[in-house]
Amino acid sequence: MYTSRVLSPRKIILDCDPGHDDAIAMMLALASPELSVLGVTTVYGNVGVDKTTRNALVVREVLQATVPVYRGADRPLVRDRISAEAVHGESGLDGPHLPEPTRSEEEFHAVRFIVDTVMANPGEVTLVPTGSLTNVALALRLEPRLAENVRGIVLMGGSVDLGNWTPAAEFNILCDPEAARIVFESGVKLTMFGLNATHQTPASPERVARLRALGTTVGAFTADLLDFFRGHHEERYGWNGAPIHDACVVAYLVRPDLFEMKSMYVEIDTTNGPSAGRTVCDFWRVTGKAPNADVAMNIDVNGFYDLLVERVGTYA
Amino acid sequence: MYTSRVLSPRKIILDCDPGHDDAIAMMLALASPELSVLGVTTVYGNVGVDKTTRNALVVREVLQATVPVYRGADRPLVRDRISAEAVHGESGLDGPHLPEPTRSEEEFHAVRFIVDTVMANPGEVTLVPTGSLTNVALALRLEPRLAENVRGIVLMGGSVDLGNWTPAAEFNILCDPEAARIVFESGVKLTMFGLNATHQTPASPERVARLRALGTTVGAFTADLLDFFRGHHEERYGWNGAPIHDACVVAYLVRPDLFEMKSMYVEIDTTNGPSAGRTVCDFWRVTGKAPNADVAMNIDVNGFYDLLVERVGTYA
Amino acid sequence: MYTSRVLSPRKIILDCDPGHDDAIAMMLALASPELSVLGVTTVYGNVGVDKTTRNALVVREVLQATVPVYRGADRPLVRDRISAEAVHGESGLDGPHLPEPTRSEEEFHAVRFIVDTVMANPGEVTLVPTGSLTNVALALRLEPRLAENVRGIVLMGGSVDLGNWTPAAEFNILCDPEAARIVFESGVKLTMFGLNATHQTPASPERVARLRALGTTVGAFTADLLDFFRGHHEERYGWNGAPIHDACVVAYLVRPDLFEMKSMYVEIDTTNGPSAGRTVCDFWRVTGKAPNADVAMNIDVNGFYDLLVERVGTYA
Amino acid sequence: MYTSRVLSPRKIILDCDPGHDDAIAMMLALASPELSVLGVTTVYGNVGVDKTTRNALVVREVLQATVPVYRGADRPLVRDRISAEAVHGESGLDGPHLPEPTRSEEEFHAVRFIVDTVMANPGEVTLVPTGSLTNVALALRLEPRLAENVRGIVLMGGSVDLGNWTPAAEFNILCDPEAARIVFESGVKLTMFGLNATHQTPASPERVARLRALGTTVGAFTADLLDFFRGHHEERYGWNGAPIHDACVVAYLVRPDLFEMKSMYVEIDTTNGPSAGRTVCDFWRVTGKAPNADVAMNIDVNGFYDLLVERVGTYA
Repeated sequence: MYTSRVLSPRKIILDCDPGHDDAIAMMLALASPELSVLGVTTVYGNVGVDKTTRNALVVREVLQATVPVYRGADRPLVRDRISAEAVHGESGLDGPHLPEPTRSEEEFHAVRFIVDTVMANPGEVTLVPTGSLTNVALALRLEPRLAENVRGIVLMGGSVDLGNWTPAAEFNILCDPEAARIVFESGVKLTMFGLNATHQTPASPERVARLRALGTTVGAFTADLLDFFRGHHEERYGWNGAPIHDACVVAYLVRPDLFEMKSMYVEIDTTNGPSAGRTVCDFWRVTGKAPNADVAMNIDVNGFYDLLVERVGTYA
Repeated sequence: MYTSRVLSPRKIILDCDPGHDDAIAMMLALASPELSVLGVTTVYGNVGVDKTTRNALVVREVLQATVPVYRGADRPLVRDRISAEAVHGESGLDGPHLPEPTRSEEEFHAVRFIVDTVMANPGEVTLVPTGSLTNVALALRLEPRLAENVRGIVLMGGSVDLGNWTPAAEFNILCDPEAARIVFESGVKLTMFGLNATHQTPASPERVARLRALGTTVGAFTADLLDFFRGHHEERYGWNGAPIHDACVVAYLVRPDLFEMKSMYVEIDTTNGPSAGRTVCDFWRVTGKAPNADVAMNIDVNGFYDLLVERVGTYA
Repeated sequence: MYTSRVLSPRKIILDCDPGHDDAIAMMLALASPELSVLGVTTVYGNVGVDKTTRNALVVREVLQATVPVYRGADRPLVRDRISAEAVHGESGLDGPHLPEPTRSEEEFHAVRFIVDTVMANPGEVTLVPTGSLTNVALALRLEPRLAENVRGIVLMGGSVDLGNWTPAAEFNILCDPEAARIVFESGVKLTMFGLNATHQTPASPERVARLRALGTTVGAFTADLLDFFRGHHEERYGWNGAPIHDACVVAYLVRPDLFEMKSMYVEIDTTNGPSAGRTVCDFWRVTGKAPNADVAMNIDVNGFYDLLVERVGTYA
Repeated sequence: MYTSRVLSPRKIILDCDPGHDDAIAMMLALASPELSVLGVTTVYGNVGVDKTTRNALVVREVLQATVPVYRGADRPLVRDRISAEAVHGESGLDGPHLPEPTRSEEEFHAVRFIVDTVMANPGEVTLVPTGSLTNVALALRLEPRLAENVRGIVLMGGSVDLGNWTPAAEFNILCDPEAARIVFESGVKLTMFGLNATHQTPASPERVARLRALGTTVGAFTADLLDFFRGHHEERYGWNGAPIHDACVVAYLVRPDLFEMKSMYVEIDTTNGPSAGRTVCDFWRVTGKAPNADVAMNIDVNGFYDLLVERVGTYA
């Protein structure tokens, strides 16, 4: 088994719209000593920001964690809001029993938390968005020095090949293409996990069974999430299990050796045409433009699930 | 002469990119007892935000005023920055002697000032943007309740007919079409002064002479501004004097009777085509969409100059 | 009265979608010895091409004329077809009694007629489109030498200021923006009569009365057309009479002295945004691009009606 | 070996821009008794239409064939022309010795040939475009009944995944996105061979050696074409051989069993954004729109080369 000697854990802010796979990403991050989760910021996306904030609080409750949660943007910069109840259910986290959170979110806005935290820890904080990029884009515009002071942005979004919400676009990027363009043109070191990679991780019944077999509350909660999440993916893709998109991002921060990456120039389509929200990836380097992102191409899926089971197993 | 019995002055925030006509708008606002200028916020535009902020401080110095100044956005939300040194000179305020400011701007960001001030005075504050709409758009996105709590937005920008920076677009809107779209779709009560109206106010030599004849420092400063500002307008339009676009907005707040308005639906062109940044004005009501803006159509120009000379005359 | 010594009449092809004002343009052209109408080509537009072709035949019948009629395009190059039954009625020529045509159109396609006729008369033929520009665009693409061999294109379409079908666009250009772009980028000498000019010609009841007072069949037919055509314009614009857009183009060919023109660069908006189909007119020459069109700005309206009444009066 | 009992050969028109792979497609078509090539029509593309027409005549000369050649469009419908000398050399067919053609092309325009031929053989003619779709689009617009009278359109163009000329778009479609949109929205039965499939056919040195080993003039000519064509593909993709894109289309008409197809809705991106010219393929059926194309997904590459060698071997 791979072991990383953690001298000082990597500081991250998890910016998410839980969401089944966001919840598992949060779970994996908070269980990983390699990471120090300074805060969880929420954004509209899979469902509205009221619900994603509540879901973040619910997951924190289930995990018996203490990470602060900050509510963020309730809508995209320019376009109308889209949402994904069809995938995640009305609550955004349908499936398991969701306990009532006993503590509420912090008072400050997520964007202010991001700006203040990054500027107070220059060069040290990695932003980890697994939802729409609206919060990060607002932070970049409100504090121009943010781009130079953030360590990197490691995100779930986009695709080198096929989209999921339209033929061309993945949901997170389509939520707010202008925000995504701001991020991809920011000059910040970017690492992108798109559908071309995350679709390699369907949670088969056997994999879900490993989580349930942990015999813990959190193991059962995770298994229940994945059982519900399977539904949409069976119907749309014919897959016997849902990919855990957002957890890939956290897994990469813990175990980069599980991923095969390729550096390329990625441009966001902000037109209103059929490719709106597409991450146009210059895989063959035909534009002559310098790469602005490391893009995940392949995942050691068994390694990914071994890590996930091990870390979920650390919860009660 | 028209007199308005001012029971309580109208609270405004002047959001500007001085800029010759912004400076005169600031002058007019600070000299008008009908208005209470809570703050001046700056934005990139005619020149970069470092210069527009410095220019706001310079004008405050010249006017011996005490209004607080807040630095705002340094670039558009999504697109690349454009600027207008060709019109306003390298400093953004070429022409008069510019004294060294003795006091600097406040520490907070303009957007935070706007949000906090509006939310602390629900229903009372009017935003008066005379530059790019980036600050206002950011404020609207950071605080969704802003739209319901602002009294209105009275802005200089756009045109019912011809543009100035491109055939289709006026400079302020073209600076940040996405920000403009956010503002025009915000549901806030909007009042728009576009080129179709402001181009009715060229400062002829006779009008400039009236200001110079005041024999005051501020009168001479204003006349010097207008003498320089004439240059571009003579060359481009063949006019013997520059229109004082931004001062129209303030004049309207003081003397609405000087203006003929028409209510219509205005949509911002956010494409990348030849009409990018255009305020598409449904003058003939062909879209069937409800008006979202009162748009200035005609100005009583002599009344406007009488007001300007009178108010500039109140400064030493 | 102005008299032009006509040594040899100017050869034109009238490319139209009758349509009330198209019909009057046809009438004016066929009654003018200054012009030699080589053919009338039809295009979809106000109504479908079956109806516009039939209407051209009907008008020919009413005028007892012999000009050949050629059926053209039935739809735009790229976009979906729009139409204007709301303005012109179900037939496209509602109002007067429409006699059954006794002769049908020619066999060849309008585009082939245009290409063959222009190429057989190099430098001599002026195309006069008063509808969608699809036929002309197809001709330009099928015969690349057409652009150098046509004498000019004198068209009704677009606007320097306001549109009629959308806030930004005039109907003819909006019908097929891509075709319009082909024409405006063709390098052919262009003369454009947009709404900014043609809206100066509402047919007031007094003017219609002059036509009816001719006491002729064609005078009554024309008056009936204008009486019906008034309806839409009263409702939309509050005008007591319909502008005779398309007849302006023919009037200009006969009496250019009635028009004030301005040379400028005109670009067609082919985006899908709110300005789609706009003729973006560089009135202030801000683009630095060389003019590609002479654009009508003002019309001697009384002179226009004198000409119209005189020429309609030459018919039985 | 697969044998097809050919009762009556399928009538096709090859619409191409030779071009190395177009030349091989022509070769394969003219050597296949399953097909009756009624004509070869040319279009600008890889190089200008003067050169592609000459190249078609050259190939006809080399093959000692008699098929008539018709010159077509010299430029895209709306956009500026692009070309691919970097891939195909200055002549468009660099590599082999190119003999002087002894016969010239026919007098009629390609579009007229396409229209007349399809209308004279209702339901029987398949159009086989391997270049820009401009000719086909013009034909569809000039003769609205063409769509119902053509048997199908089997084309090389686009991609389900990556582009080659931009990250998003394949060269043929990018040449004229509006023409492609006309074709894909025409309602004609479409079969599409995009880069996702054709990139499976690189002509390795071993495969080229099989052609050269035929010991014939045409075998050597083909081998010389492929040796030159390899250059660009080695440099850009690192492949030891050039894919023979256009020949896939003809191979499919002869041996459909060599191909795995998938039916889907394909939309053409006609914006000016980074995805301009993309064939947006609804692989996962997320749009709910009915499929308009059968799209090649996989090729039996060995079977493809066996067929090619066999048929090239039939020439002297």
